[in-house]
Amino acid sequence: MEINSLQNARVKNVVRLRDGRHRQKQDRFLVDGIRELSRANRGGIEIVEVFVCREICTEEQQQRLEEVLNQLRQDKGTSTRGAWNLFQVSKNVFHKMAFGDRAEGVLAVAQVPHWELEDLKLPEKPLVAVIEGIEKPGNIGAVIRSADAAAIDAVILADCRTDLFNPNAIRASLGTVLTLPIRETSTPASLTWLRAQGLPIFTARVDGSVPYTEIDFRCGGAIVLGSEADGLTDEWSGDDIQAVRLPMLGVADSLNISATAAVLFFEALRQREQT
Amino acid sequence: MEINSLQNARVKNVVRLRDGRHRQKQDRFLVDGIRELSRANRGGIEIVEVFVCREICTEEQQQRLEEVLNQLRQDKGTSTRGAWNLFQVSKNVFHKMAFGDRAEGVLAVAQVPHWELEDLKLPEKPLVAVIEGIEKPGNIGAVIRSADAAAIDAVILADCRTDLFNPNAIRASLGTVLTLPIRETSTPASLTWLRAQGLPIFTARVDGSVPYTEIDFRCGGAIVLGSEADGLTDEWSGDDIQAVRLPMLGVADSLNISATAAVLFFEALRQREQT
Repeated sequence: MEINSLQNARVKNVVRLRDGRHRQKQDRFLVDGIRELSRANRGGIEIVEVFVCREICTEEQQQRLEEVLNQLRQDKGTSTRGAWNLFQVSKNVFHKMAFGDRAEGVLAVAQVPHWELEDLKLPEKPLVAVIEGIEKPGNIGAVIRSADAAAIDAVILADCRTDLFNPNAIRASLGTVLTLPIRETSTPASLTWLRAQGLPIFTARVDGSVPYTEIDFRCGGAIVLGSEADGLTDEWSGDDIQAVRLPMLGVADSLNISATAAVLFFEALRQREQT
Repeated sequence: MEINSLQNARVKNVVRLRDGRHRQKQDRFLVDGIRELSRANRGGIEIVEVFVCREICTEEQQQRLEEVLNQLRQDKGTSTRGAWNLFQVSKNVFHKMAFGDRAEGVLAVAQVPHWELEDLKLPEKPLVAVIEGIEKPGNIGAVIRSADAAAIDAVILADCRTDLFNPNAIRASLGTVLTLPIRETSTPASLTWLRAQGLPIFTARVDGSVPYTEIDFRCGGAIVLGSEADGLTDEWSGDDIQAVRLPMLGVADSLNISATAAVLFFEALRQREQT
């Protein structure tokens, strides 16, 4: 189907989905870019509508786009996922929908997934990251991007009250919020779940008692990170929880959350790759 | 001296200094906040004017502010640094100067320092960070904040064309751009200097040939980081340069620069603290 009118209802709805309230109301979000669409599909996200403007694609982008669309078509035939509709849109319609953002010639509307913590399938000795109380989509995206690189098995957002499918979170994560197993829940529910799994719990605290290099990550565990402003809540304490610290040898007294996350994730990976 | 008028020339000039062109033209910048002013003083930055609005300070802030002002007064008496002037400003004047930003009741105008690479004093086996071609103040600030925590001895900005004293860089660095030895220069000049120091050079590249965990940082060296979009320029190659890579085990093919920096800085520190 072709869309050339800026007044088209679907076009107007895409513009609306840039707004968090509309995403919440419709339980849908936007996937912007070829790589992101491919990652959404790979991550099992249900695609509802795909808008394509081949005019603005380079030749290489066109080719990659066709590959992704073919993949989506195959999955449509074989999976239980719903059908999606493809629309060809004119240049001005596309630019209205993609305003200011990367314009790679493809933009999709997707269903917000509602995966349950209980359905999380983990390997043996898993490494899980828990983020508590972070609201800034860019921060969450940056932590998830590092988690993806360092082979973290799952990310739990505890009381984050964020919009995980905010365009800034998707962009900051390079689309890995769409592929990594992520669960949104409360702090008590995460604690209960982590304890039920028997996972060692390591909280990152500026006043932690154990240097992070002394932690043994080889048996897996949960790395728990709080917001810079407020730190972790008191619920993250108990005999089964170790508070770890990073050295702070300069004049500042804290690292930002994405730096802390990267250091801990990669130290865990370093130890686990040596065994 | 007291200032109650929004039309005061000094007040208007502070507002102007929020703009990069004015900072460049006047060779001055703003220091916003008690901690930042303290760090600027500690870093040897020359303070020109200090604007104080005690009305909006909490009691604890007032106390910290007085400590910082006393420190500044002492340094004024004993150092070769120039004199600075203190102004009491009314609430509305302060809010005009500090607009939208943290308002801790103190704001200073400082002289941009022009330190030379040649004047850099380094300890034995130093660890230096080099950042090439980054323009985003927030990214530079984040890398510098991690460098401060991990005891990096100096940071060289090679062809960064940034405004290091942009409010966002100061804030993202928690004021450590004001205390850490930082030098701005070109890529060829950094290379010449690093080679003259006999420092091993490690470039962070996604296609680097050596895993970062196999690098021996105990004898010091330079960790060189490029921009995410363009990577490092070809000038960073030669028999004396090792390209190191971080594992990328997920679907994304790169880490952001502040995560890469944090992982490398803290791995270097981990190795150096063990010896």
